[in-house]
Amino acid sequence: MQAILLAAGRSRRFQPLGDKNFFRLYECFLVEQQVAVLQKAGLKKIIIVANDNNFARLKKLFPKYEIVIQKNLDEGMCGGVLSAKKFLTSPTLITSTNDLVDASVVKKVCSTKNCDGAILAQKVEQYFPGGYLKVGGGKIFSIVEKPQPNKTPSKLVNIVFHFFQQPKLLVKELEKASNQNDDGYEKALGQLFKKQKFVAIENDKKWIALKFPWHVLDWMASSLEEQKARVSKKAKIAKTAIVENSTVEDGAKIFDYAIVKNSLIKKGGVVGTHSLVRDSIISKNAVVGSGSDVARSFIGENSWLHRNYVGDSILAENVSMGSGCVCANLRLDEEDVKTVVGEKKMSTQRDKFGCVIGKNSRVGVNTSLMPGVLVGENSFIVSGLVVEKNVVSQTFFTAEWKTKRVKNLKSPPARAKLN
Amino acid sequence: MQAILLAAGRSRRFQPLGDKNFFRLYECFLVEQQVAVLQKAGLKKIIIVANDNNFARLKKLFPKYEIVIQKNLDEGMCGGVLSAKKFLTSPTLITSTNDLVDASVVKKVCSTKNCDGAILAQKVEQYFPGGYLKVGGGKIFSIVEKPQPNKTPSKLVNIVFHFFQQPKLLVKELEKASNQNDDGYEKALGQLFKKQKFVAIENDKKWIALKFPWHVLDWMASSLEEQKARVSKKAKIAKTAIVENSTVEDGAKIFDYAIVKNSLIKKGGVVGTHSLVRDSIISKNAVVGSGSDVARSFIGENSWLHRNYVGDSILAENVSMGSGCVCANLRLDEEDVKTVVGEKKMSTQRDKFGCVIGKNSRVGVNTSLMPGVLVGENSFIVSGLVVEKNVVSQTFFTAEWKTKRVKNLKSPPARAKLN
Amino acid sequence: MQAILLAAGRSRRFQPLGDKNFFRLYECFLVEQQVAVLQKAGLKKIIIVANDNNFARLKKLFPKYEIVIQKNLDEGMCGGVLSAKKFLTSPTLITSTNDLVDASVVKKVCSTKNCDGAILAQKVEQYFPGGYLKVGGGKIFSIVEKPQPNKTPSKLVNIVFHFFQQPKLLVKELEKASNQNDDGYEKALGQLFKKQKFVAIENDKKWIALKFPWHVLDWMASSLEEQKARVSKKAKIAKTAIVENSTVEDGAKIFDYAIVKNSLIKKGGVVGTHSLVRDSIISKNAVVGSGSDVARSFIGENSWLHRNYVGDSILAENVSMGSGCVCANLRLDEEDVKTVVGEKKMSTQRDKFGCVIGKNSRVGVNTSLMPGVLVGENSFIVSGLVVEKNVVSQTFFTAEWKTKRVKNLKSPPARAKLN
Repeated sequence: MQAILLAAGRSRRFQPLGDKNFFRLYECFLVEQQVAVLQKAGLKKIIIVANDNNFARLKKLFPKYEIVIQKNLDEGMCGGVLSAKKFLTSPTLITSTNDLVDASVVKKVCSTKNCDGAILAQKVEQYFPGGYLKVGGGKIFSIVEKPQPNKTPSKLVNIVFHFFQQPKLLVKELEKASNQNDDGYEKALGQLFKKQKFVAIENDKKWIALKFPWHVLDWMASSLEEQKARVSKKAKIAKTAIVENSTVEDGAKIFDYAIVKNSLIKKGGVVGTHSLVRDSIISKNAVVGSGSDVARSFIGENSWLHRNYVGDSILAENVSMGSGCVCANLRLDEEDVKTVVGEKKMSTQRDKFGCVIGKNSRVGVNTSLMPGVLVGENSFIVSGLVVEKNVVSQTFFTAEWKTKRVKNLKSPPARAKLN
Repeated sequence: MQAILLAAGRSRRFQPLGDKNFFRLYECFLVEQQVAVLQKAGLKKIIIVANDNNFARLKKLFPKYEIVIQKNLDEGMCGGVLSAKKFLTSPTLITSTNDLVDASVVKKVCSTKNCDGAILAQKVEQYFPGGYLKVGGGKIFSIVEKPQPNKTPSKLVNIVFHFFQQPKLLVKELEKASNQNDDGYEKALGQLFKKQKFVAIENDKKWIALKFPWHVLDWMASSLEEQKARVSKKAKIAKTAIVENSTVEDGAKIFDYAIVKNSLIKKGGVVGTHSLVRDSIISKNAVVGSGSDVARSFIGENSWLHRNYVGDSILAENVSMGSGCVCANLRLDEEDVKTVVGEKKMSTQRDKFGCVIGKNSRVGVNTSLMPGVLVGENSFIVSGLVVEKNVVSQTFFTAEWKTKRVKNLKSPPARAKLN
Repeated sequence: MQAILLAAGRSRRFQPLGDKNFFRLYECFLVEQQVAVLQKAGLKKIIIVANDNNFARLKKLFPKYEIVIQKNLDEGMCGGVLSAKKFLTSPTLITSTNDLVDASVVKKVCSTKNCDGAILAQKVEQYFPGGYLKVGGGKIFSIVEKPQPNKTPSKLVNIVFHFFQQPKLLVKELEKASNQNDDGYEKALGQLFKKQKFVAIENDKKWIALKFPWHVLDWMASSLEEQKARVSKKAKIAKTAIVENSTVEDGAKIFDYAIVKNSLIKKGGVVGTHSLVRDSIISKNAVVGSGSDVARSFIGENSWLHRNYVGDSILAENVSMGSGCVCANLRLDEEDVKTVVGEKKMSTQRDKFGCVIGKNSRVGVNTSLMPGVLVGENSFIVSGLVVEKNVVSQTFFTAEWKTKRVKNLKSPPARAKLN
């Protein structure tokens, strides 16, 4: 049994967090985590579909796997699968890094009997903007892409863990659909459903979508819930620090009167005096400087806080914030937080959500980032601002709301030692 | 012996804190507290003068008392007393909720012998804007309303605990004075002083005026001074929390490294990690979120702070403040704090005074409220502002200093659980 | 053996910290500290050159010393030495308060044998804007004032601890040079080097220049490194306070959950609850109010903080800052901090540097002072500002960036008691 792992997408909706495959929540990149799930599910042979930009990194990560390149990214998933056409000769699972599920569920999808294929289906209680499966009599009839909320044919959302006994037939349909528009893959699938017997396997374990950057918070919450608390003997924890239900790795430091709850402090991570970290991940060598409050947030490697409130937010690597800078995470009217992804304004469907800051960016003292703001990579935001709109990458962002390009920072910058 | 309790006033100068009678500092409303004082002073029969708006609430609170309605509130205290005319046939104490004194003092006023009536008088060392009593030979000659500071006829200020042996004569004078201007009651009293022997009973216990909203801080300071510290066994107090000379009620929570001094934390109230609460009252279910400093302030029910400094301020119920929001309580020139009540700029006669915020209002992160600012009910103030002027109720207050009406909030809003 | 101590300079480049001679880091003024060094080096007779403004203070400090007045300050060091002409008859050390060195080094300069005089020389590894000594064959040939960085004749910088066996010859040269420009003294010295044998004594101990205000931070760091930690029994230190490697003097108070490291808290100084003080000096009666973080900073007498971050900054006496005010100490681009001294923009050659605030100034809540800002004496800065430029003294500084003069503050102002 083999798997095609589609890793060529542009991660457009995941910005400013870079290539989704290389987002690192825990020890390993997302793509590594997904490969581990596939391996655990019994898929020994994995073919990865890369793009020109991430091929080298993927090759380095997975020297023993077949890695093919999808040349035209405009052809989407359809093009991605066709890039691996030559491998599609025996039973195959097609998947991506857009969804995280349990290995046991993947196994179930791949071992379904008496059918031509199986599709993982997520039962949703409230509307989710995805593809819905129309089922009946133990088989899937069709797939309806993004129906109106009141016109969903079922509560079953298509999750891309798709198993095909005869992937050659899929290839045939994909080739027919490939010169069509964006959803050629779904079209091909629909054709296949008419001709073959595909069954929906309902997911009965966790499901984490990873489409938008705030989905990282769901992923983190799920990971923290599963973690077994463990404090390394090589961590330096002050006597007066309080550490509850948390993992603290080698070389991490928790200073006096700090409080860490339900969190993960990775290698070399620091929680300063009088700081509170709850339900959060502090990545390698990141510093939560004194007097900070980090709640339900992900702080990337080498990022640096000091006297900040960071709530329900995601900071990529080597981000720093000046004293008094706040990531607001609740609207005054307490409605769901809105954001702008690409050009499109949308709801995050979260009542608490702060901001997302791309790598190497800096925020000045006493600046307020409004809920839902996305800040690009390598940007500087000056002090004392209220930032209500997204900040594009490579920007020097001032009170006049004008922007100009800045030179890249040497990253990570040298910083004074802590005491 | 009976009392007329005037509770029909509009509490104009008490805004944005609503109907003064229903302000709740401790367990009960101010009107209940005043009724308790009267009862303790031996006044078994109490007639309450209500207005159209508070009649129902008063009736519910005091089902066994006579409650009459003052129809025309423009007629002030004179009209208020006349509303209860039919009861004014036997010795009567007339009072209101404008002043708090000790029950023993009230008793003394009501039991003065060898005179036709008695007036409670407060000796003041510095000028107070009230009515002054001209006395001599054991009797009151006249009352001088708001004299110039250098023209006070005595140091004795008229406090409305007025006892009349023959209130029918008062009624007669009130009816003559009623079609006059605002101070008909005082005019009538002046006439009575000419015809009868009234004596001034000097107050030798506490006196708390409750005219302007900042007077709540005097009331609170006096109450906290009198309280007997008591920590409920049903309160949850972290081992590292420091609680000194304070009362903590059932279900209240004091988190790690919090410090509570000389304060009252009411049922379900919360003091978060690394917070300092001193000389303050945290009302029922109010939350002082982590990293806050609350000094000499009243925090109303269900209000919610997080990383704020609230000094010498009053927050009504269901108010919330974003992280980094500060209530400044000291002018740069350290002069007495000024404020605007109605249209009139005035001194609060306090060198430290913060702000007053009406119920259901919200303040964004990193916003600074200047000393003396009054914020109305149901208003939103955006983040990062410096608020130098009063904010009217029902306002959405932005950096452009423009305002527009907002929809009422569902109150209190659902909020995430603490951890 | 005698010394001439030049103390008449205007301390222009040291602003806003006033007359350099009367800056007090520890117990005594800088001029007292320098006199003590000279005494320790064996110089029994000290003649001080004052100006019209500081003569009375110096006379009061040193009643037994000769103090002469330099009338024309435009004549600089040359005029200063000539003011003491009548004393220049026997071997003499000439020095000032511009540099701090060890007494043993001063002694070495004064006791050099087989020469007509000795000049203290500091070997520098990177360019320092001073006068460089050209040496060879055991003698000094010449002095080159402020050469281009790539044209220094040696690595030896002239430090004003200058010893003359026959100061009369110096006087002669000074009188020739005196109607020349600013560096008459150096010119005269150059002439002397041609005629006599002067040797360069290399400084092998500490050297602290005290030209610009940020040099106070070097002075402080050096002093703190040398101090022997000692906690007075008359200090009041809360049980939960953490005091490490610090001196706490009589009457100082460290409140609960405060942390003090590598610092000096002087008499009556206060560190409030949940505050962190590291590598800093808190002067007499200064108050680090609750929730502050003071790092590598000097806080002058009677100054008052509350919930501030003060990093790498210097606050003169009786300065106060409102809650949330931040002294930013790191540029977004992490380059060396620039500042403007006089009219001239220059680098402080420090990557971390905050601000300097002159005495009696006030800063409002949530105001952000940018790195390198100098604030004059007696100025008020309103709340919520970002201050990017120097603030001149006697200014009321508002969001419109306009300024007007303010009345002098009564100093220090009466303040509420702590609890």
